[in-house]
Amino acid sequence: MLPFDPERFARLARAQQVDVVLASTRYSVRYLTGGYYLPFFSRASRFGGGRYLSFVAVPSTRLDSAFYVGRQDRALDEQDYIAAFGPFWIADRRWVPRGPNMSSDAAAAAARALRDHGFAGATIAIESSFLPVDAYEALRRELPEASFVNGTSLLGELRAIKQPHELARLREVHRLTAEVVRAVFMQSRAEETTRQIAARVERHVGERGAAFLYSLINVGPGLLRAPSSQAWGRGCPMHLDVGAELDEYIADIARMGSVGPPPPAASALFEVCRAAQERARTSVGPGVSCGELWRVGSEAVRVGPGAEYGRFLAHGLGMVSHEPPEVTPESTRALEAGMVVSIETEVRHPDVGHVKIEDSVVVTATGCEGLGDVDRGWCVAAAGG
Amino acid sequence: MLPFDPERFARLARAQQVDVVLASTRYSVRYLTGGYYLPFFSRASRFGGGRYLSFVAVPSTRLDSAFYVGRQDRALDEQDYIAAFGPFWIADRRWVPRGPNMSSDAAAAAARALRDHGFAGATIAIESSFLPVDAYEALRRELPEASFVNGTSLLGELRAIKQPHELARLREVHRLTAEVVRAVFMQSRAEETTRQIAARVERHVGERGAAFLYSLINVGPGLLRAPSSQAWGRGCPMHLDVGAELDEYIADIARMGSVGPPPPAASALFEVCRAAQERARTSVGPGVSCGELWRVGSEAVRVGPGAEYGRFLAHGLGMVSHEPPEVTPESTRALEAGMVVSIETEVRHPDVGHVKIEDSVVVTATGCEGLGDVDRGWCVAAAGG
Repeated sequence: MLPFDPERFARLARAQQVDVVLASTRYSVRYLTGGYYLPFFSRASRFGGGRYLSFVAVPSTRLDSAFYVGRQDRALDEQDYIAAFGPFWIADRRWVPRGPNMSSDAAAAAARALRDHGFAGATIAIESSFLPVDAYEALRRELPEASFVNGTSLLGELRAIKQPHELARLREVHRLTAEVVRAVFMQSRAEETTRQIAARVERHVGERGAAFLYSLINVGPGLLRAPSSQAWGRGCPMHLDVGAELDEYIADIARMGSVGPPPPAASALFEVCRAAQERARTSVGPGVSCGELWRVGSEAVRVGPGAEYGRFLAHGLGMVSHEPPEVTPESTRALEAGMVVSIETEVRHPDVGHVKIEDSVVVTATGCEGLGDVDRGWCVAAAGG
Repeated sequence: MLPFDPERFARLARAQQVDVVLASTRYSVRYLTGGYYLPFFSRASRFGGGRYLSFVAVPSTRLDSAFYVGRQDRALDEQDYIAAFGPFWIADRRWVPRGPNMSSDAAAAAARALRDHGFAGATIAIESSFLPVDAYEALRRELPEASFVNGTSLLGELRAIKQPHELARLREVHRLTAEVVRAVFMQSRAEETTRQIAARVERHVGERGAAFLYSLINVGPGLLRAPSSQAWGRGCPMHLDVGAELDEYIADIARMGSVGPPPPAASALFEVCRAAQERARTSVGPGVSCGELWRVGSEAVRVGPGAEYGRFLAHGLGMVSHEPPEVTPESTRALEAGMVVSIETEVRHPDVGHVKIEDSVVVTATGCEGLGDVDRGWCVAAAGG
């Protein structure tokens, strides 16, 4: 059972005239292998004078020529690996012994495997913005006849249609992140600084077993959107835009809150943002173009007293923040069932602050389903404390 | 006020015939700039079809030719940056606008800055195991006369002597991690699996505001050292070896525990490990060679009934796990005050399990000081629950 859609892969590889994809980022290796990544290095790849690197190679045809290059490990042998991650669909698995340069040693082993499978002169797609120089130089030295091209967009397109097990993880991480934002609003106090509140976000994400990625935080009026020494204050609108990762899948959620009731102007702008969210969601469905979604959302957020400050943004989301589909005014690309789109509706009003709501949806056969639809209203924290 | 020792830097750069170091990893950028790294990307650099990359360049002479290349950000301008991270010692700061390829755009800006400062034909040290291919190709295209060498060992050596503010962070992350291990032992139950217990480690690290890196876990007898479906069981020795990161500095701590009293054989091996730790610590001090530390520790752990299974390991630790100094039998290098060494004493006994203690020390003027010396004894959890 392959962890990805082989026909979609073959079609994309042929369209880009790629003979074999040689992936090396953690998420691509996990995506293409079905989870195989040495846990010791999954949160920090640097070690000694170098860095951990594993590879997975998937040919555009002849999937039986796929291979994996990992690292021999004192703590885990191949059977432990398979017990932890399930059956490995790739038969050719190579384990590089511990040596002075982990990344170029792994690349040299990958080059030998490419040669063994007849790809010495092939067009090889690498992840150019991620593959380290020393690994690339080892590949070029061992395979002087090969051509190397950037495979990042191919892999992004491959991931654009999510499978059910991916949607389950995306639902879970979005639910968890929305709960974190709610809990942080409720537990924070007017006299706390945005730096203290952002640190609370980090702890709440961590205690739920997810990895904290970022928290953008704004207290209005004023448009600074980063943790600072500014206090929340009573009756001031705060937006929290939080990123978290669970089992390689990313959530991206923004909510509004205040200690005590928010200023009426902020409430009014928030209602514009919420209505624009709903309007955008109503327009989402298979066959709708990304350009059309952009137009609907942009019109909906540019109404009322803050019209000139309204902004609509939408982007694919999954293992990477801002992955395909790209939602731009010019895009004629149609949404397809299984795509996940994060929808951001916001008003950056100089007299009020940065008012925003962001949620992700998955495109379904008939429309869309919200991920993490938890407590989407304005959160009013108690003024006491 | 420079965040690193400029004389040490100049000496190392001259010794390796490097004209300028062009650093690009998160930790090197933070180390050389004094903290400057865009928070949005500090936990996940991938974004869209590429990845975030910033650079800091430090010449071997003429520190006034140092420069920084960052990214223009909607949320933070330069003044916000300086408010968050403090004064920036580098005067030449360049902010790359948002574009289609973040990493090669940043590299092209770095190449222009190198040329502006007279380094177009220089020997430039890059972080070869980390700098991405597309950035490297942009550098080579823009600077065809330059020579590129691997600067990873130079930067590792620069960091080998820790400054007081670094030691404060290392103390904090080791204390926190030792507390996590203790709390996890006390809260875990005999019927829980090592996978469940490892997940608790992750949550405990996160709720203290640190980033979880890894947990190696073993239940004896048996030598598997990874989370699995194996239950802890009553009276079975467990070792937990946990990595965590706080503000870029890494802790690496191993402790032993059991539900109810441990088997006498495990206790006896643990006493060997503890005694070897103390023996190794007693030998640590300025001027002592790494080879001598290795010999003392190795002799001390190879005694008694598990002698043939005893193993001694020590390594530098800081922003990178296993950084200089390297502790090998052959090393004649002398320890210096301010170095941090993680000391691992362990017995991997096939009939008992993997018994181990690991702690880090900082070399002081007269000997050494333990970091995270919290609850170093065998932890006996209550049998109830």
